[in-house]
Amino acid sequence: MNDAKIRLHVDQPLGPGQTVNLDRDQAHYLFGVMRLVEGAGVLLFNGRDGEWLARVQDAGKRGGVLIGEAQTKPQGAPPNLWLLFAPVKKARTDFIVEKAVEMGVARLVPVTTEFTNSERVRVDRLQAHAREAAEQCGATWVPEVAEPIRLDRLLAGWDSARTIMYCDEAAPSGMAALRAADLGNSADPAPGAWAILIGPEGGFSNSERTRLRGLDYGCTVSLGPRILRADTAAVAALTLWQVQLGDWR
Amino acid sequence: MNDAKIRLHVDQPLGPGQTVNLDRDQAHYLFGVMRLVEGAGVLLFNGRDGEWLARVQDAGKRGGVLIGEAQTKPQGAPPNLWLLFAPVKKARTDFIVEKAVEMGVARLVPVTTEFTNSERVRVDRLQAHAREAAEQCGATWVPEVAEPIRLDRLLAGWDSARTIMYCDEAAPSGMAALRAADLGNSADPAPGAWAILIGPEGGFSNSERTRLRGLDYGCTVSLGPRILRADTAAVAALTLWQVQLGDWR
Repeated sequence: MNDAKIRLHVDQPLGPGQTVNLDRDQAHYLFGVMRLVEGAGVLLFNGRDGEWLARVQDAGKRGGVLIGEAQTKPQGAPPNLWLLFAPVKKARTDFIVEKAVEMGVARLVPVTTEFTNSERVRVDRLQAHAREAAEQCGATWVPEVAEPIRLDRLLAGWDSARTIMYCDEAAPSGMAALRAADLGNSADPAPGAWAILIGPEGGFSNSERTRLRGLDYGCTVSLGPRILRADTAAVAALTLWQVQLGDWR
Repeated sequence: MNDAKIRLHVDQPLGPGQTVNLDRDQAHYLFGVMRLVEGAGVLLFNGRDGEWLARVQDAGKRGGVLIGEAQTKPQGAPPNLWLLFAPVKKARTDFIVEKAVEMGVARLVPVTTEFTNSERVRVDRLQAHAREAAEQCGATWVPEVAEPIRLDRLLAGWDSARTIMYCDEAAPSGMAALRAADLGNSADPAPGAWAILIGPEGGFSNSERTRLRGLDYGCTVSLGPRILRADTAAVAALTLWQVQLGDWR
């Protein structure tokens, strides 16, 4: 019986009868915080083998062993969508990462723009947030959080096969632009490679805006008549993309 | 010249030459924190008279006076959309309120459901968050935050002319349901009265779900294949509504 409430991402192989060794943090969480006992069920995923129901075989204070029982979900994959975002204040950056994973992205890239005004980005912390969000939202993968890169360098090395959607107040309404970008073929199961670019709280500079408008692989959308914070804009833009081109269709 | 960067909601009338007295908190913010001096511009709105550029006439530690110069924006109004939300943990509830104002709602109603698991809702705190969000996002109104109400009582007294959109995993995809609800007439400038209902982290109970499904004035939408947190679901649902029926069209 699948009575498991807790989902954990692990780095080890998953399969029937496969043992999974827990690290100290995981053991503390399962046995110290959540008080699981031997025989209790836990859902595991590693990004390769789908989701598995596993049972506690050995519960220790500093470690523990689970044993794989049955696959509960096949391995899935997010749409081929990246989120490029200018880091903002700490809590809101964490929020953007969490929301992007729930909404379904394959990769997160912190991007430094001219008006980016933020402390150093700690990729390991953001990656841990991405992992927790994947555990919570039912995804069988954890999106990678890339090292931060300057916007001009990112664009200089960009693969033009990946369309960049970015938000611009002067753009046509969101869905209209996306429909046009989709070339009228919204039933196409493969929308191709995309990235959504979310600027910092101060917006893009004039030269960045000119650069973005000139991209052959750019697509602008409008996010309504009010000024959205960066974290709101990220969720709204991801919603527009997912419902028109992604796995919400 | 409109050099004003700061927007403030005030309760007093706005007009040319009209004096506006600041309370202690506003004076502290403008003169203590933001260091405005006499003659500096501030944008004001009160929900009735549009947005006005005003100038500092008197800057004190415990108060101050601004004087209205020129209207910078006509009075606007949000779409006739309410957000009904089950309060979650403190930071996420604050977040839902902030996001709802940015996304454009007319009224926020905290709703207690069977699985709502949260501390007492402080309406005054949430109303202050709504005001700050309105100041930040450029709205000329502040949505009202209503007193919390139990879902069963709310539905018992509901005006059936206001459609309730709520999220259900078994529903058709978001846009399809909204298009159907809009009776194929998405060019209609007046979509009528709507409310979006966001459940608690644990979802609705079976009896609540049955009740919602039986509503004549209900409309279900799906928010994709992953489990969204309540705050993510609120922004995503508001995006779908705004782009299809609201002021993002």
